[in-house]
Amino acid sequence: MEELRISPADPRGSPAKEQQAAGVGILLQIMMLVLSFVLGHVLRRHRFYYLPEASASLLIGLIVGGLANISNTETSIRAWFNFHEEFFFLFLLPPIIFQSGFSLQPKPFFSNFGAIVTFAIFGTFVASVVTGILVYLAGATYLIYKLPFVECLMFGALISATDPVTVLSIFQELGTDVNLYALVFGESVLNDAMAISLYRTMSLVRSHMSSGENFFMVVVRFLETFVGSMSAGVGVGFTSALLFKYAGLDIDNLQNLECCLFVLFPYFSYMLAEGLGLSGIVSILFTGIVMKHYSFSNLSDNSQKFASAFFHLISSLAETFVFIYMGFDIAMEQHSWSHIGFIFFSILFIGIARAANVFSCAYLVNLVRPAHRKIPMKHQKALWYSGLRGAMAFALALQSVHDLPEGHGQTIFTATTAIVVLTVLLIGGSTGTMLEKLQVVGDGLDSPLGEVSQHLPPPLLSFDSNNGGYRAPTYEGESSSGNRFKMKLKEFRNSTASFTDLDRNYLTPFFTTQNGEEDEHDELFGDSRRAGYH
Amino acid sequence: MEELRISPADPRGSPAKEQQAAGVGILLQIMMLVLSFVLGHVLRRHRFYYLPEASASLLIGLIVGGLANISNTETSIRAWFNFHEEFFFLFLLPPIIFQSGFSLQPKPFFSNFGAIVTFAIFGTFVASVVTGILVYLAGATYLIYKLPFVECLMFGALISATDPVTVLSIFQELGTDVNLYALVFGESVLNDAMAISLYRTMSLVRSHMSSGENFFMVVVRFLETFVGSMSAGVGVGFTSALLFKYAGLDIDNLQNLECCLFVLFPYFSYMLAEGLGLSGIVSILFTGIVMKHYSFSNLSDNSQKFASAFFHLISSLAETFVFIYMGFDIAMEQHSWSHIGFIFFSILFIGIARAANVFSCAYLVNLVRPAHRKIPMKHQKALWYSGLRGAMAFALALQSVHDLPEGHGQTIFTATTAIVVLTVLLIGGSTGTMLEKLQVVGDGLDSPLGEVSQHLPPPLLSFDSNNGGYRAPTYEGESSSGNRFKMKLKEFRNSTASFTDLDRNYLTPFFTTQNGEEDEHDELFGDSRRAGYH
Repeated sequence: MEELRISPADPRGSPAKEQQAAGVGILLQIMMLVLSFVLGHVLRRHRFYYLPEASASLLIGLIVGGLANISNTETSIRAWFNFHEEFFFLFLLPPIIFQSGFSLQPKPFFSNFGAIVTFAIFGTFVASVVTGILVYLAGATYLIYKLPFVECLMFGALISATDPVTVLSIFQELGTDVNLYALVFGESVLNDAMAISLYRTMSLVRSHMSSGENFFMVVVRFLETFVGSMSAGVGVGFTSALLFKYAGLDIDNLQNLECCLFVLFPYFSYMLAEGLGLSGIVSILFTGIVMKHYSFSNLSDNSQKFASAFFHLISSLAETFVFIYMGFDIAMEQHSWSHIGFIFFSILFIGIARAANVFSCAYLVNLVRPAHRKIPMKHQKALWYSGLRGAMAFALALQSVHDLPEGHGQTIFTATTAIVVLTVLLIGGSTGTMLEKLQVVGDGLDSPLGEVSQHLPPPLLSFDSNNGGYRAPTYEGESSSGNRFKMKLKEFRNSTASFTDLDRNYLTPFFTTQNGEEDEHDELFGDSRRAGYH
Repeated sequence: MEELRISPADPRGSPAKEQQAAGVGILLQIMMLVLSFVLGHVLRRHRFYYLPEASASLLIGLIVGGLANISNTETSIRAWFNFHEEFFFLFLLPPIIFQSGFSLQPKPFFSNFGAIVTFAIFGTFVASVVTGILVYLAGATYLIYKLPFVECLMFGALISATDPVTVLSIFQELGTDVNLYALVFGESVLNDAMAISLYRTMSLVRSHMSSGENFFMVVVRFLETFVGSMSAGVGVGFTSALLFKYAGLDIDNLQNLECCLFVLFPYFSYMLAEGLGLSGIVSILFTGIVMKHYSFSNLSDNSQKFASAFFHLISSLAETFVFIYMGFDIAMEQHSWSHIGFIFFSILFIGIARAANVFSCAYLVNLVRPAHRKIPMKHQKALWYSGLRGAMAFALALQSVHDLPEGHGQTIFTATTAIVVLTVLLIGGSTGTMLEKLQVVGDGLDSPLGEVSQHLPPPLLSFDSNNGGYRAPTYEGESSSGNRFKMKLKEFRNSTASFTDLDRNYLTPFFTTQNGEEDEHDELFGDSRRAGYH
């Protein structure tokens, strides 16, 4: 498309050549996709967990990109491999995030909702700020390349987005504790939304720079975006539920129409939010949850099967493609490797920041949880370890090259690239070993959690004894605010419990053809497990 | 994507704004899609055949585009509605054409294969040349805007591509004769491929202009392209059949992998052909036929259901979107309405050219067909009438704006636009009435054909008596060449008969898990009818 507009000077056989180049480019992409799928399948079959599918895809992209770089591929073909953030955000990300919401096991997710929201929102905020401050301090002391404070915070925000794809696939494969899975899953999905909101807000702060009401504005704007996007997503989801309940499309020869409409709704939700200047991924995530919960059961049986398979297929294609695309772009792009120090220290810093995120949030969550439901230390460690960075961080970093002045953006981009490659390959490859070391491989719903926390004394110790007192000193002085937190969080838990009642008594009967009283909550989602993981 | 690259001067909040504009643009597109589907459904339900779904989509696009034009929509949003030929050729066309091949009823298609190929290849060639010559003559006599002869032939080629979508949906709805359906279907699909090949060849001739070996070169190049593309398509199809036969992916938990690979093959075929400089649509059409015939039965049951529904869904989305997209672009684009004469005469000329195509080819076909299998006059008339022009003509015309000098391309584009809108709305709307008038509404396989042709004398008269002797005079003088034709065509028919044997005895057992001997040919395709139309 671009070339056609840019070079109208030579219109002769140009369109045909363009199209041939496009053909070769896309052909190469399809071949890499097929290779990734086949390789991933073979590796999985031989239970070789050191190279998960995502890592394999990234490697394939890197290798083919490297070869294309050496062999001087024509620029018209190369153009097909440049990672376009817009393409990523508009076409690759929506199906991935929607599938996350759609394949959600609602029970463990909602029973851990408080914890997940704490990790994703408060935790990501902490991680971003900690990373930003550390990078700024290191820069101020001339340890690494110096960036302005706002740009450090932007870097902190974008690098705090953890990737949901790789680790989760291993978790699914090995079958880990349901609650741990829900935590890792929920956190990595929601924190993408948080990170992108934070990044955009910081970017806005940077361009306006009215330093007075900065922090307040950031918080307000973020809450505005988050609540607005969530409402838009939930609203679209409920609309779709009502449509499929009353339109009478669940007869056999209208299956195609039914599926077409069902498939368009998530995308509608994403674009509605984006069009309103809100966050598309928060919106589509909640549309996914609501559509699975309510609209899905209003479909005909055939369409239900089809829709599950369709979203699964599209999201697998998008996921695999993202890693290939990223690998290829990394191999092709110009990097400024002069700032090795920056890369080294930022890896260190994100480790620290993630620790600050996970352990402080887990501490807060454990404050309010009853003894048998505390997050055990080994789950916290698993959570800390599973924070690898993926396509979201990469796409935001690529955007920062456009957003920030020459040099700054490049440094951030190179550092992010290095972090993505290292974490995907190293953490992705070692997650299996880690899970086994931490002995969290297994499948019981409550037993592992109960087993660990039963012989631990109430709140405080359960945290201190395991972690060697990280932040314990501050806790003593903050006990009153800690108590206030406790109460707030308890209230929140009560509200989620009453939400379950609300759902069973009002929402389900109103939005679905099923009668909420008749079937147990579990039965309604009986097939979510089948369609989702396992 | 483009804007990001083109305006790096103001990188501040630009990406976010770009994305918002994209959101609004895509949101609007989704809303129009949903509206089209719903409107199409309602119209179909009320048996209102004057506004088929395609016409409705085109109208929706035209209206919304007109409104957007009046209301001065921002250019960043408008950019999302410009019809990009590349987007059309690379992403919208492949699923439509693949689905055509995939939903093919092989029996009527192959039993009419000779006739279809005659109409599509020889007929389209005749139609293009006739249109080109008429336009050139009218130009030379200053009746209309004068174009060079090669450009007239280019116009003839692009305007000879008939649209498979609209008429076929009405045919399916009303349930017409199977053979007529096969003819219209086969011709409209294959002639797209022919028209695009002819257009490109003419475009090449134009840019090289070595007028000496022109005609010979055209024929050789066309045959090269056609045979090459067909072989590529068939080759990819057979490869996929063998893969799915031996890879052992038809177990339950690999359904997603199986579907991913199955879905990638058609696109692979398209891009392979394009990458080799061949015709992607010929290739993907044959891949569709082969994959349905051989690979499909190697899939697991669930994947079979899924794949049928998936391709149906994707192609419906693409089809509907094409008409919306076209409507919107027509409303937004600059047209040179100064050449009303050109438009008027070209409509006249394509009517004549289509008559030359249909009636001469039907005559040839009837020469070799036995008495009970002749193409009756009313089928010929239906075939003549159903030649409406759609997205392929539009996309090629848009390309001609780039290919041809200022003014020439514009004139062709405007004329094509007018022809597309008029034929889609008028012919599309009146096809139902026409079919009823011609009394070809019904569902028997052989009865209507038999009924009509039984009381007609052998070859010659069956043509003359109905058509009032069009081209009859020339026939007398050409009887020897006519006889040679007869023999050639008879040979061809024999070869298709022996192909059926080849298929049953060797291809089916080799490429599928089924045993060709055991099950009747019909049984193998039992579900093609279910998955396809009706």
